[in-house]
Amino acid sequence: MIIVMSTQATQQDVDDVLERMAAEGLKPHISEGEERIVIGVVGHTYAELIDVFSAYNNVENVIPISKPFKQASREFRPIDTVIDVDGVPIGGGQELAVMAGPCAIESEDQLMRTAEVVAQQGARFLRGGAYKPRTSPYGFRGLGEEGLKLHAKARAATGLKVITEVMTPADVPLVAEYADILQIGARNMQNFNLLDEVGKIDKPVMLKRGMSATIEEWLLAAEYILKGGNHRVMLCERGIRTFEHYTRNTMDLSAIPVVKRLSHLPVIADPSHGTGKWHLIEPMAKASVACGADGLIIEVHPSPDHALSDGPQSLTFDNFRKTMEQVRQVGQAVGRKVGQPALAMA
Amino acid sequence: MIIVMSTQATQQDVDDVLERMAAEGLKPHISEGEERIVIGVVGHTYAELIDVFSAYNNVENVIPISKPFKQASREFRPIDTVIDVDGVPIGGGQELAVMAGPCAIESEDQLMRTAEVVAQQGARFLRGGAYKPRTSPYGFRGLGEEGLKLHAKARAATGLKVITEVMTPADVPLVAEYADILQIGARNMQNFNLLDEVGKIDKPVMLKRGMSATIEEWLLAAEYILKGGNHRVMLCERGIRTFEHYTRNTMDLSAIPVVKRLSHLPVIADPSHGTGKWHLIEPMAKASVACGADGLIIEVHPSPDHALSDGPQSLTFDNFRKTMEQVRQVGQAVGRKVGQPALAMA
Amino acid sequence: MIIVMSTQATQQDVDDVLERMAAEGLKPHISEGEERIVIGVVGHTYAELIDVFSAYNNVENVIPISKPFKQASREFRPIDTVIDVDGVPIGGGQELAVMAGPCAIESEDQLMRTAEVVAQQGARFLRGGAYKPRTSPYGFRGLGEEGLKLHAKARAATGLKVITEVMTPADVPLVAEYADILQIGARNMQNFNLLDEVGKIDKPVMLKRGMSATIEEWLLAAEYILKGGNHRVMLCERGIRTFEHYTRNTMDLSAIPVVKRLSHLPVIADPSHGTGKWHLIEPMAKASVACGADGLIIEVHPSPDHALSDGPQSLTFDNFRKTMEQVRQVGQAVGRKVGQPALAMA
Amino acid sequence: MIIVMSTQATQQDVDDVLERMAAEGLKPHISEGEERIVIGVVGHTYAELIDVFSAYNNVENVIPISKPFKQASREFRPIDTVIDVDGVPIGGGQELAVMAGPCAIESEDQLMRTAEVVAQQGARFLRGGAYKPRTSPYGFRGLGEEGLKLHAKARAATGLKVITEVMTPADVPLVAEYADILQIGARNMQNFNLLDEVGKIDKPVMLKRGMSATIEEWLLAAEYILKGGNHRVMLCERGIRTFEHYTRNTMDLSAIPVVKRLSHLPVIADPSHGTGKWHLIEPMAKASVACGADGLIIEVHPSPDHALSDGPQSLTFDNFRKTMEQVRQVGQAVGRKVGQPALAMA
Repeated sequence: MIIVMSTQATQQDVDDVLERMAAEGLKPHISEGEERIVIGVVGHTYAELIDVFSAYNNVENVIPISKPFKQASREFRPIDTVIDVDGVPIGGGQELAVMAGPCAIESEDQLMRTAEVVAQQGARFLRGGAYKPRTSPYGFRGLGEEGLKLHAKARAATGLKVITEVMTPADVPLVAEYADILQIGARNMQNFNLLDEVGKIDKPVMLKRGMSATIEEWLLAAEYILKGGNHRVMLCERGIRTFEHYTRNTMDLSAIPVVKRLSHLPVIADPSHGTGKWHLIEPMAKASVACGADGLIIEVHPSPDHALSDGPQSLTFDNFRKTMEQVRQVGQAVGRKVGQPALAMA
Repeated sequence: MIIVMSTQATQQDVDDVLERMAAEGLKPHISEGEERIVIGVVGHTYAELIDVFSAYNNVENVIPISKPFKQASREFRPIDTVIDVDGVPIGGGQELAVMAGPCAIESEDQLMRTAEVVAQQGARFLRGGAYKPRTSPYGFRGLGEEGLKLHAKARAATGLKVITEVMTPADVPLVAEYADILQIGARNMQNFNLLDEVGKIDKPVMLKRGMSATIEEWLLAAEYILKGGNHRVMLCERGIRTFEHYTRNTMDLSAIPVVKRLSHLPVIADPSHGTGKWHLIEPMAKASVACGADGLIIEVHPSPDHALSDGPQSLTFDNFRKTMEQVRQVGQAVGRKVGQPALAMA
Repeated sequence: MIIVMSTQATQQDVDDVLERMAAEGLKPHISEGEERIVIGVVGHTYAELIDVFSAYNNVENVIPISKPFKQASREFRPIDTVIDVDGVPIGGGQELAVMAGPCAIESEDQLMRTAEVVAQQGARFLRGGAYKPRTSPYGFRGLGEEGLKLHAKARAATGLKVITEVMTPADVPLVAEYADILQIGARNMQNFNLLDEVGKIDKPVMLKRGMSATIEEWLLAAEYILKGGNHRVMLCERGIRTFEHYTRNTMDLSAIPVVKRLSHLPVIADPSHGTGKWHLIEPMAKASVACGADGLIIEVHPSPDHALSDGPQSLTFDNFRKTMEQVRQVGQAVGRKVGQPALAMA
Repeated sequence: MIIVMSTQATQQDVDDVLERMAAEGLKPHISEGEERIVIGVVGHTYAELIDVFSAYNNVENVIPISKPFKQASREFRPIDTVIDVDGVPIGGGQELAVMAGPCAIESEDQLMRTAEVVAQQGARFLRGGAYKPRTSPYGFRGLGEEGLKLHAKARAATGLKVITEVMTPADVPLVAEYADILQIGARNMQNFNLLDEVGKIDKPVMLKRGMSATIEEWLLAAEYILKGGNHRVMLCERGIRTFEHYTRNTMDLSAIPVVKRLSHLPVIADPSHGTGKWHLIEPMAKASVACGADGLIIEVHPSPDHALSDGPQSLTFDNFRKTMEQVRQVGQAVGRKVGQPALAMA
C-alpha cells in the first residue's frame, strides 16, 4: 500500500497518517520529494486499509500493491488446479471440457434428445437450467426440481455430467443433490450469501463473470468460495456489457490469458451468452480455445425457433456438430485434446 | 413487436414466421418493401416472443415496441406514487426525503451521535448498514441483528425512520421487523429471489440501480416487487460503471428525469456511492435536487478517518450541515421543501 | 512515479531499473518489504517514463504520482481563469455564460430568427455549425463559409458573440476570422494537429470532451492548446458513451466539480448533446448550474421538426424561454447571475 | 424506417408525420394497434430522416431498418475484397497478412534491425510510426519525414511493404509518397476531413476502430473513404475502452466475424494495442486468427525496455519468433497460410 499525500499536506497531516499506521502495526517507509511526500507500507495489508487511509486529510491517493485475493492467486498455488468432476477432469491444459445443452430444461423429450447429441459429439457435460434468472418477471422461470430430475435422468442415460444454475442460498442443498457442477450466474457473481453457501458444499462450482465485473472483482468472488472451504472452483467468461449492441455482450477473451496468469483456477468460455448470436458461436469458440480456455459451454437446442429462452444464441444439432469439428482442429493446433464423436450407428 | 426479415429471406422463411404468429394468436401487418419484408404486430406481446422470433431463419432483427414493464410504467399509473413511511411521505414533488447516516453501523455511540446530528439538520430518515456486501471476503461484513437493534434504538431516541439493506431472502423477515424501509443494494438489483421476497412484505423497499443496469432493466426489477403485491417501491440512482476512474462510479443524473417520465415511482439520489468522494457530495446533491430527485441518501460519520467502510465518501457532521444548507437553497429554487434544522440548544 | 517489482524479481532486475534511473538523473527511494521491492521517485518525472519502466523485466506496475498536465492544473494557477470574449466574461463564478442557437446554420431566416430569440432571452452567445461532423458521409455537412458569414451577420444584428466548430487545421484561419469562440468537437478532442493549430491563434477555444475520454485525457488535450500559447481555453462536458441507450449519451455531471478542483479552466455543460432529447434539457441544464457549471450551450431551432440535424434535441423558442426562467431560479440559489430577458416590445 | 407513435399521439400528430412523408416522397404503411400506431417505410431512406421524424410531436421512437452504410456492406459486394498492396494480397481468406515493427521509428539502426527480423520470420509488412499521436503534449511525437525516409530505406533493403500512420489531411500527399499503406489511427476514425482526403488517393488505407466506436460507426467511417473513390480499405480492431483496467483496452474479437458478415472489407487484428501487455500478444494473436482475422499487426522492438513508446506492449525479437510459430499452427488449423521463416543463415 502506498499513500500519496497531496502537495498541500502539512506535517500534522503526515503525522496523523503515521500515528494510525503505528496503531495498525504497520511499518512505513517515507519518501520526501520536492513536491510531496509518499508513504509506503510494503508488507501485507488488508483491503479495508485502503478506505481507512483514503479518508485522512490531504491524502490524495492510496494505491494497493498486494493483490487483494489470496487463495485464488497464482502465487498461492503456482500449478494449475485440476478439478475432478466425478472422474472427468477440468483444467490443467490437457483435455478441453465441453459443456453443451439447452438454455432451459423444457421437457424430457427436449433434454434427452439434446443429451444424446451432446454425448455423441464427444462432450462430457450437459448444461440445462432448472432455475432461470429472467430480466422480466413475466418470463419463463424454469421447471425447478422437476427440471433437476430430468437432468439426473439424462445423466443416467448418457453418462454425461450435469451442470445447472443455483440462484439462491436456500436452493443450494437441493441443487447439489442432483447436479455435478453448480453454476453461479453473472447476475449473482456478487450475491455474497450465495457464494458463502456454495463455499460449504462438496461439489464443484462454476462462477460466471458479472456483466460489469473487473477481473479482480471476479477473483475476489471466487475467493469467497475458496475461503469457505470449497476448492473446486472454475471461472466462466461470458461477455461484459459495453456500448456495442450488435452483440448481446462483448466477450473479453483477453480475460482468459489474464486469469491464467493471475490465478490457478480453470476458465471456461461461454460464446453463447458472450455473443447472443448463434452464427458467432463457432468463431468465438475457436478463438477461446486458441487463447487458452480450459473449456467451452455452448447452448444447443433441438429447435432453436421453439426454445423458451435464448433461441437466437442456440445451435442446432447440425451446427453443434460442425462447431465441434472446427474446435477439434484448433484444439489440436494448441495442444488441447477435444472429445471425439462416437461412431455413427448403422 | 416488429420483425425485420433479411434481404435474403425466402417466402418460406416469411411463412414460417407467419405460421408461428398464428399459433401465438398474433395478428401480423406485412409491409413489403423494395429490399425486404417487415412484419409488425402492434397489440400487446410478451417479452419472450422477441427471443422466439429472433431465432427464426433469415429474421434479421426483432424490435420490441411496447415497454416491457407494466405496473412500473407511467401509463399504468399516470400520477406520482407517494409512499407513506409511517407518516412521512416520499415522492409526489412536495418534500425532499433526506436519508443520512453511516455506511455501516459500527457501535451504539457512533450511531446515536450520528442520528442526533441527522435529525437536528432536518432529515427524516437514518441510514445504516447491519449487513454489508463487501467485494472482498476479508472485509467487515456488518453487525447483523445487533446492528438492527441499534438502529431501532436510534429511531426510538430521535423519531427518525430507519432504512437498512437486506441481502438475502432468508433475512427479509428479520430485517422487516426492525426497519422502516428495506434497501436492495446495487449488486442485488437482479437477485430475483430476493425481489420476489420483498414483493410479499408490507414495508417500503428502496431498489438501487445495478452498476451496469439500463433504466429498462431497473424498472423491470421494480416490476418484480410490484407484481409480488408490494406497491411501496422507490428507486435509487447510485452511479453506473464507466471507464472514468477519478470517481468511484459515474452518476447518471439524467436517469432521474427519465425515470420520472417513464414511471410513477419516486427516485432517490445517492451522491455518496455515486461519486465515492466526500467533496463531490454537495455539488451532486444539489444537482440531483435540481433535476427532480425525490430524495437524497448521504453517508455521514462522526469521524470518516476511522470508519470501517466508505470513509472517503462520508461527510463529517459539519460538512453535512453545510450540504443541507446548500440543498435547501436549491430545493427552494425548484419548489421542493427541505426539512429545517432544529434550533440550536443553549 | 512508483515502480512495483514483481515478487519474482531478482536483484539483477532491480539493478537494471536502478541503472536506468541513474541514467535518467532520477533519485530512487527503495522500500524492501517481505514480499517485494518498491522503488519510488518522488520528484518530477515525465509521462513517457511510465512506459519505459513498465517494459523492464519483472516490473509489475508503474504508478504515476504527479498529474501529467501542468498548465491546465489548479496547482499551476490556483485562481479561476476568466476568459474575456470581446468584453463578455466566461468563468470566475459570477455570470453564467449561456450559448444557444441551432445545431447547424441552415439559412439566413433560420439563424436570424433564432438569434433574436436567443438575445431576447438574455443569452450572450449564439451557437451554430457551419462545418458539421456527421457519422454518415450521406448527411448534411454544413454551409461552410456561407454559414460563417451568416453567423457574422447575426452577430452584427444582435450583439451576440458567436461560437462555431472548426474541424480541421486548414480551416482554422478562416473560422477564426469570423467566430468569437472556436469549438473543437468531441470527435476531435484528440486531433492533435488541430489542437496545435488552435494553440497558435488569438481567439478563445471551447474543447468538448471526447465521447470516451477520461477527465485526465481531456485536460491533457487542453494542455496541448495551452502549451501552444493560447490561454483562453474552456472545456465542455457533453456526455460520455455508456451502455444506456435511452439517452444519446450519459452526461457525467460530476466531471464539472472534478474539473473545477483539478483545473482553473471554465467548464460549460451541453445538455442537448448530453441527453439527445429535448425534454431532458431543462432538468439537466438546471442540474449543471447547480453543480457549478460556468455556462450552458443549448440547441434552439425555430422548428425542430424541420431541422437538418439534431431536431430531437433542440428546444423550440417557447421551451427555450421556459428553460431560461428555470435556470435563472437555480442560478440565484447557487449565486450565479443569469442574463435577464429583454422587455417585451409593444 | 419504422416510426412508433406514442400512446398519447393524436390523429393530428399522425397526420403531421404522414404529411412530411409525402413531402419526402416516402410511401408509408400504417399499422393501427390496440395501444398505438406504427408507421413503416420499407424502401430506402437516408440516415437524416431518423433525426427528422424523431423530432415530431408524440413520436416515441424511430427505428432504422436499412443499414446506413452502402459500399461497405456485404450486400453491395457479396465477395470478399482482396487488396493488392504492390503485389501482396490482403483479404480473401488465403494468406494471413502479418505486419510487424516498432511503434515509433526511432533510428535507422532500430528500424533496420527490426525489419530484418520481421522479414526473416515471414511477415510481409513493416509497421512503424513517423507521426505519433500522443495523449500528452510532452511525449515523443515522431521523427516526421525523416522517419518516412528510413521506412523507405528499410523497404528497399528487405522487400517488406511499409505501413505508417497519417494524422492530418495536409500530410496525406507526403505520407502517400513513401508508404505502401496509410493508417488512420483510432483517435482519427471520425476525423472526417482526413477520411475525405485518403478517399482521394491511390494507396490502400487501414482504418482503426475508434476506442468507443460501434461497429456501425466504424463501417460508416470506411464508407467515407469508399465514397471518395478509394476502394482499397481494410479495417483494424485494436480494442475498445471498457471499465477493465488490467488490459489497456478490451479486444472485441467478436467484431472480426461480425464485420466479415456485414462487410466485404478485410479485417486486421492488433493485439499489441488491444491488450497493452506483451505477454498477451501471443494468445490474442492466435485467437484473432482462429476467429477469422485477415491479418495481424504486432509491435516488435529490439529492446522494448528502451523504446520511446509502447515498450510494455512490444515483443522482443525472440518472442516475435515464438509468436509466429504459434500463429502458424493456428493458421493451419483454420486454413490460413502464414509466411514461413527464412532459412537460418550459416
